[in-house]
Amino acid sequence: MTTRFKSIALMGNLQDPRVGDTVIAVACHLPTRGAEVLIGQDQQIEGLPDTVRRVPQDKLAGDAEMIIAIGGDGAMLHAARLAAEAGIPLLGVNRGRLGFLADVSPGDRHEPLDQVLAGEFESDERMLLRAKIRSGDAMHDCGLALNDVVVKRQDTGRMLEYHSYVDGKFVNTHGGDGFIVATPTGSTAYALSCGGPIVAPVLNALVLAPICPHTLSDRPIVIPGDSVTEVRVGDDTADRAEVNCDGEVTGVIGPGDVLQIAAAEQRLKLIHPKGYDYFEILRSKLNWGRSNRRTQSSA
Amino acid sequence: MTTRFKSIALMGNLQDPRVGDTVIAVACHLPTRGAEVLIGQDQQIEGLPDTVRRVPQDKLAGDAEMIIAIGGDGAMLHAARLAAEAGIPLLGVNRGRLGFLADVSPGDRHEPLDQVLAGEFESDERMLLRAKIRSGDAMHDCGLALNDVVVKRQDTGRMLEYHSYVDGKFVNTHGGDGFIVATPTGSTAYALSCGGPIVAPVLNALVLAPICPHTLSDRPIVIPGDSVTEVRVGDDTADRAEVNCDGEVTGVIGPGDVLQIAAAEQRLKLIHPKGYDYFEILRSKLNWGRSNRRTQSSA
Amino acid sequence: MTTRFKSIALMGNLQDPRVGDTVIAVACHLPTRGAEVLIGQDQQIEGLPDTVRRVPQDKLAGDAEMIIAIGGDGAMLHAARLAAEAGIPLLGVNRGRLGFLADVSPGDRHEPLDQVLAGEFESDERMLLRAKIRSGDAMHDCGLALNDVVVKRQDTGRMLEYHSYVDGKFVNTHGGDGFIVATPTGSTAYALSCGGPIVAPVLNALVLAPICPHTLSDRPIVIPGDSVTEVRVGDDTADRAEVNCDGEVTGVIGPGDVLQIAAAEQRLKLIHPKGYDYFEILRSKLNWGRSNRRTQSSA
Amino acid sequence: MTTRFKSIALMGNLQDPRVGDTVIAVACHLPTRGAEVLIGQDQQIEGLPDTVRRVPQDKLAGDAEMIIAIGGDGAMLHAARLAAEAGIPLLGVNRGRLGFLADVSPGDRHEPLDQVLAGEFESDERMLLRAKIRSGDAMHDCGLALNDVVVKRQDTGRMLEYHSYVDGKFVNTHGGDGFIVATPTGSTAYALSCGGPIVAPVLNALVLAPICPHTLSDRPIVIPGDSVTEVRVGDDTADRAEVNCDGEVTGVIGPGDVLQIAAAEQRLKLIHPKGYDYFEILRSKLNWGRSNRRTQSSA
Repeated sequence: MTTRFKSIALMGNLQDPRVGDTVIAVACHLPTRGAEVLIGQDQQIEGLPDTVRRVPQDKLAGDAEMIIAIGGDGAMLHAARLAAEAGIPLLGVNRGRLGFLADVSPGDRHEPLDQVLAGEFESDERMLLRAKIRSGDAMHDCGLALNDVVVKRQDTGRMLEYHSYVDGKFVNTHGGDGFIVATPTGSTAYALSCGGPIVAPVLNALVLAPICPHTLSDRPIVIPGDSVTEVRVGDDTADRAEVNCDGEVTGVIGPGDVLQIAAAEQRLKLIHPKGYDYFEILRSKLNWGRSNRRTQSSA
Repeated sequence: MTTRFKSIALMGNLQDPRVGDTVIAVACHLPTRGAEVLIGQDQQIEGLPDTVRRVPQDKLAGDAEMIIAIGGDGAMLHAARLAAEAGIPLLGVNRGRLGFLADVSPGDRHEPLDQVLAGEFESDERMLLRAKIRSGDAMHDCGLALNDVVVKRQDTGRMLEYHSYVDGKFVNTHGGDGFIVATPTGSTAYALSCGGPIVAPVLNALVLAPICPHTLSDRPIVIPGDSVTEVRVGDDTADRAEVNCDGEVTGVIGPGDVLQIAAAEQRLKLIHPKGYDYFEILRSKLNWGRSNRRTQSSA
Repeated sequence: MTTRFKSIALMGNLQDPRVGDTVIAVACHLPTRGAEVLIGQDQQIEGLPDTVRRVPQDKLAGDAEMIIAIGGDGAMLHAARLAAEAGIPLLGVNRGRLGFLADVSPGDRHEPLDQVLAGEFESDERMLLRAKIRSGDAMHDCGLALNDVVVKRQDTGRMLEYHSYVDGKFVNTHGGDGFIVATPTGSTAYALSCGGPIVAPVLNALVLAPICPHTLSDRPIVIPGDSVTEVRVGDDTADRAEVNCDGEVTGVIGPGDVLQIAAAEQRLKLIHPKGYDYFEILRSKLNWGRSNRRTQSSA
Repeated sequence: MTTRFKSIALMGNLQDPRVGDTVIAVACHLPTRGAEVLIGQDQQIEGLPDTVRRVPQDKLAGDAEMIIAIGGDGAMLHAARLAAEAGIPLLGVNRGRLGFLADVSPGDRHEPLDQVLAGEFESDERMLLRAKIRSGDAMHDCGLALNDVVVKRQDTGRMLEYHSYVDGKFVNTHGGDGFIVATPTGSTAYALSCGGPIVAPVLNALVLAPICPHTLSDRPIVIPGDSVTEVRVGDDTADRAEVNCDGEVTGVIGPGDVLQIAAAEQRLKLIHPKGYDYFEILRSKLNWGRSNRRTQSSA
């Protein structure tokens, strides 16, 4: 058998023993199919076969033709940004429970992997977001996100006042806990907890969702995926807000600063096993088939 | 063994074969504990023991010291109104899945029933609602409800305009699909689907919940349980609305009519097996322990 | 001055006196700019100038180069379907309050109209929905909608069980009051009251929104605008549901029937005065600038 | 005229010029009615009449028979805690816009004040919350709140995992941004932005509201006002959370700590002008009379 991917980077949080075991199993299997395995030099793990090539973390994606990330969707988010920057596809192996992004189950043994290596897979392209901050004349990068860019007041007790703009047009002045710009991929993450809709990944769109807005009619808006969104905080010097990309703090904005969020140039090629069905994953993750409240009437 | 309840009415939807089997099993068991079993004359069921006394449906509750309802919470709602009117307690046996109201499982065999007969049980009192319609000088009864009284426009395509009052004070003019007045028991039924809160059954309170309100700030209100709520529809002659009690149509109101909803005189004594835990039922019914979305980050 | 539109159909609900006055004023004005005015033969209105040509209602749109609808967004919905079918543009004059669709104010006198006649205007194209019902082998038309196609159980007291599909793929089995398929235009109408997001009109997308869903995680989904959505009701013969297009009943589906909803071939060209700003209308209609709750802290 | 209140403490944020002007006007007026005016020594304000007695801030409430707070509901929250601890009533004068708590308008000149001094007023008693933290064997005070006690993760990017208990019974394990325990007074503040219901102030109840919960069925619960709520964070050492009382940070909890929230011994006597109508304030603050979206149909 020839493999479509000759060198594959394996990633995952090795602190989690379930992840470690699966990394070793996959690292043993892939060479039997003709694929070289790359793992970061810094990763502490025993029991890896000698065939594994240890490479510096920052070269991992560059030397590989594909990343396989093992773990939950959290691990996927990290790998996704690396894969997108390197322009290589990503496959996710979950830890036993189906993930929105990691949809190969280790319980299926190596059959799904073999199919992928043989070129039998489905894939879709996912948009990422690029956040930038403009301070005075300077514009600097503020991170890459597969799910969402979030602005939140640092001071937990007070309301953040902020202004939103889309393609240069003023949208609204908001008061509340903060603001989310989410991709379709991220629409089922934090934005969903904030009242945002589910957005099908094939739709080129973004969700703008206020977090716990003071004005009850301040509702999520869905805009075209090629829109440029800008956020400014109020003029009060106390109005400082943290910027998070996929849950990691990447910057801070204060009065006068402009946070700009737009689709990144990079896109992620996400690989799925044959038969991938987005709605099936949705049903599973959102417990749609299991309404235990169903027996009660009056609805 | 002596039983605390000498005559027990068995109720349930006998069309459902699981219900029928359980009715027979319970009807065979109770006499061994010294309790007479009463079943409605009209109920079609084969295999009942000779010890069962068949009584006219309208005498069922009057002749019994307790009702055991077998089935889902739907069956419970019907039995609850009968039990409340007759002033006797109600015990619910579910069809295999824990219910908000029917919390004895048939899979537990007869042990929980024996405990109840022996007087070892917990119980709580649940409020019911009485709906009345005032048309001109006349006031007539419009039903009894354990869960909720609902006003809804008959014409599905248009918005119902209606006015709400609490204890004679004007609350709001609403536009939308309709209006719910729910007891704490009903707070986890239809009102929950309409954005209402969960209300602990021990709290003497009512939920007023607009259904799909046009004004986004028209939110559910929780008021004292001894409040009198009134609803009037708009003056447009097309504004006619159906009144439902626990999901059954009990009346219609038009311009000039006043629907009055208040706690009923009758209360329901609901019997639970020992160790009853409301929050445990809540966790089970609302799938609280099973968030499959948990693996995704950015929240 | 030459007008870009030589014949213009005027429409509106003439029962409303404010509408009638504006119709007459506009009917007097347009001929002074070289445009012929067409009004439906059946319309009862006094005081129209002799220059008005009365035509049969069903020829109104066919003979005109543009429709001007006077009234609220309700009047616009009716005119929009006619304009889309005839392939002519639509301009809306509101009754004094800015509308989502009717965004010329009569208080502005004739200046905005003159600008439009002079070809100085903005316009956007709005998607409409076509509903069809498949019963056995037969497929028949079930209406055209600018805002939304809604499926709702006729029996107000019970829950409707229904199944949804997108492009042939099963999405979910739902329980609740019904289901909405909304265009971006309709996203600020009924769907917004049901928890749906606001969708920018420039985005080619649809909102699928369950109405008062029994399962709390059954949330609105945004899908591509060229998707075909299908809805089937449950197999219980009592599960019959009404189909509404823009609030008017256009059909009924029962077990075995399939309601199919997709973008219509026809699209609406909606004309706006110069300086049209969708977000400004949103801010106005949703009271975004007027949070009276703002003075209270702890947020 | 004799006044019912012989010494009155005036409070307000004097940085706000509108507040300062009203403080001076009221400070000049009250002595003409026989009431002595007390103002904190530290307060910087020019133009006060000589009749004003300047007292140390910590003696202000103790020496007065009533507090008049001037400003928004934010100023009221601070004054409310002082008034409740001192056991004296509180009257609020707003800055021109009706507040939930400050319902005397300065535009009404002194007539409402005169009526209050003459004993012609309405009043209601509002519950406050006392927060305490139990760390090991030690229990220490963590603040007093009229609106709400809020637990929030300090690290904005991650989800807080926490466990809630009511009267010693386990309620749920939550994931999300945090948790609110709100009084009826606070139900229209932050909790409302988090999906909580409005609770009538006369109802002795508390709202437990998760903030942006990960599990979509994790909904607000209303419990009796005499319940004791406890919150523990997860065992992960990174799970540290801030405790806020009425928006001010009063403590931090980490793994092992228990935050206990219950009705405070102190209650607030809140004075209203004659004709106080809670629902009228609600309608005003929530813009209930002003649905600009009303013209759009299909609902």
